[in-house]
Amino acid sequence: MQALVIDNGVHFEQNHKKPVIKPGEALIKTSLAGICATDLELLQGYAGFTGIPGHEFVGVVEDADNKALIGKRVVGEINCPCNNCATCKRGDHNHCPNRLALGIRNKNGVFADYFTLPQSNLHIVPDSITDQQAVFTEPLAAALEILEQVHIGPADPVLVLGDGRLGILIAQVLALTGCDLVVVGRHPSKWNILNKKSIKTCLAKDLPEGYQAKVVVECSGSSNGFSQARDLVRPKGYLVLKSTFKSKTEVDLSSLVVDEINITGSRCGPFSPALRLLQAGLIEVEEMISGEHPLNRGVEAFKKAQEKGVLKILLRP
Amino acid sequence: MQALVIDNGVHFEQNHKKPVIKPGEALIKTSLAGICATDLELLQGYAGFTGIPGHEFVGVVEDADNKALIGKRVVGEINCPCNNCATCKRGDHNHCPNRLALGIRNKNGVFADYFTLPQSNLHIVPDSITDQQAVFTEPLAAALEILEQVHIGPADPVLVLGDGRLGILIAQVLALTGCDLVVVGRHPSKWNILNKKSIKTCLAKDLPEGYQAKVVVECSGSSNGFSQARDLVRPKGYLVLKSTFKSKTEVDLSSLVVDEINITGSRCGPFSPALRLLQAGLIEVEEMISGEHPLNRGVEAFKKAQEKGVLKILLRP
Repeated sequence: MQALVIDNGVHFEQNHKKPVIKPGEALIKTSLAGICATDLELLQGYAGFTGIPGHEFVGVVEDADNKALIGKRVVGEINCPCNNCATCKRGDHNHCPNRLALGIRNKNGVFADYFTLPQSNLHIVPDSITDQQAVFTEPLAAALEILEQVHIGPADPVLVLGDGRLGILIAQVLALTGCDLVVVGRHPSKWNILNKKSIKTCLAKDLPEGYQAKVVVECSGSSNGFSQARDLVRPKGYLVLKSTFKSKTEVDLSSLVVDEINITGSRCGPFSPALRLLQAGLIEVEEMISGEHPLNRGVEAFKKAQEKGVLKILLRP
Repeated sequence: MQALVIDNGVHFEQNHKKPVIKPGEALIKTSLAGICATDLELLQGYAGFTGIPGHEFVGVVEDADNKALIGKRVVGEINCPCNNCATCKRGDHNHCPNRLALGIRNKNGVFADYFTLPQSNLHIVPDSITDQQAVFTEPLAAALEILEQVHIGPADPVLVLGDGRLGILIAQVLALTGCDLVVVGRHPSKWNILNKKSIKTCLAKDLPEGYQAKVVVECSGSSNGFSQARDLVRPKGYLVLKSTFKSKTEVDLSSLVVDEINITGSRCGPFSPALRLLQAGLIEVEEMISGEHPLNRGVEAFKKAQEKGVLKILLRP
């Protein structure tokens, strides 16, 4: 089968071995896949991954023990827990220390004709959701995770630092709370969706002097984002971290103590509400698509995804 | 009046000027004062403080607009807010950007015969609480702040990293929740109070391999404590920071994202519950007193407070 492979850079393979399902797994034919910031970080060495990357997908089940799934259009959660350890037993399956993660950790991903996932990870996509929408389910779920972790009330001042792929999804999700939201970014060309939704946007230099929000979401994707985000959180406020990168960061921990700042790392989120919001038409995603490339042009697609001003790049096998 | 003064080191002055109260303030005669880790950090340059240090006290009101206060035995909250800014108006007085802090920030402290505080900062000490107990109200309130910030349930595994003055108070407070608590320290000689209260104690090397708690409180007072504490928090867990120090710390922010760790900086806490717990006899503090020194031997007392194995050193003017 066709596949993109990360191994000292990324390359395309025409005749990669097709995966074989184990008990409980489904074989899925990729319909459409999305390139995410994490995929670009993998290319830089993050998580030490080699193999087929990709974890944002919509596909069709080709084979599974549960025959009712065959032919169904699905999206899927990316963490494959052992279901056996103390972490799994207390319900934190996404944090299972033995977990595989689709296209990120010891498991080939979706930038290929086929891939496998446990059947229990799959969510059937309602007919009214297009493939172009459904491929955003995973990052939209990651955006929703913030609301699982931090209570955001309708009167709260909230700031999203970062106007990339994830930032725009996060902003749309948080705006649904009615909160007093501003997105601080660097690329006004990306702000159309936000502006249409009456979500405030600005450059950092245009914030009112001394402005601080109760909740700041750092999704700039850059290691410099932390200190900027930190300065924008008011005392007793909440700083949600979404960016992952390879380097460490110098932090003034004493200032966190003095200002009683709350920091929350935030990763994967719940799929069902993501599908509900897409079905309800509350999240605009199709306008975020900057381009669709055939899988055999995947190496170019990776380059494209790294260009400034580009939002979501899709791959179609 | 007598006073200890920090100004390139700490020295004793026999004839320091006695403070004069402003409207709304009380003049307090120090009965007993405690040396805290923050005082020792001030000596190292933390917060750039010069003047009379000290913020843990019990004293007697000598003068105040509110004549009912005169002659009363009091303890007092250390932050003096402006009551006028946006932070104060939303109720976060302890974080007022214009605040003075007794013996820490632009306001002389209690290591003197007399000092001043706003009347509204004072709490009258019930007769059944001794001076030796009451002088622990401020650090006990700081320990209680943790329970204002993080919910600790009776079944939660909780670890306190640090067996110093604050660590022993924190452990006693958290043990009242019924949680599964262990104090990890370096000085078994300090563990008597904890052991008497059936609170588990151990050296870090004696923790079960791979042990992680849901809540970890970092109160080691050392900049190295952070990475040790971080490793002891399980995914989705809570890391409460109590230590302040001058240097910055390298942090792997991506691992916080992947493990969805919650970090909470924690500073000053509520005085009323601290007095209630002391009155109820639920917190053992008098055994924590390692020595009481006259104020004119304060320089020695500061040295003593820095010795290994020493808990609370008190000063009596």
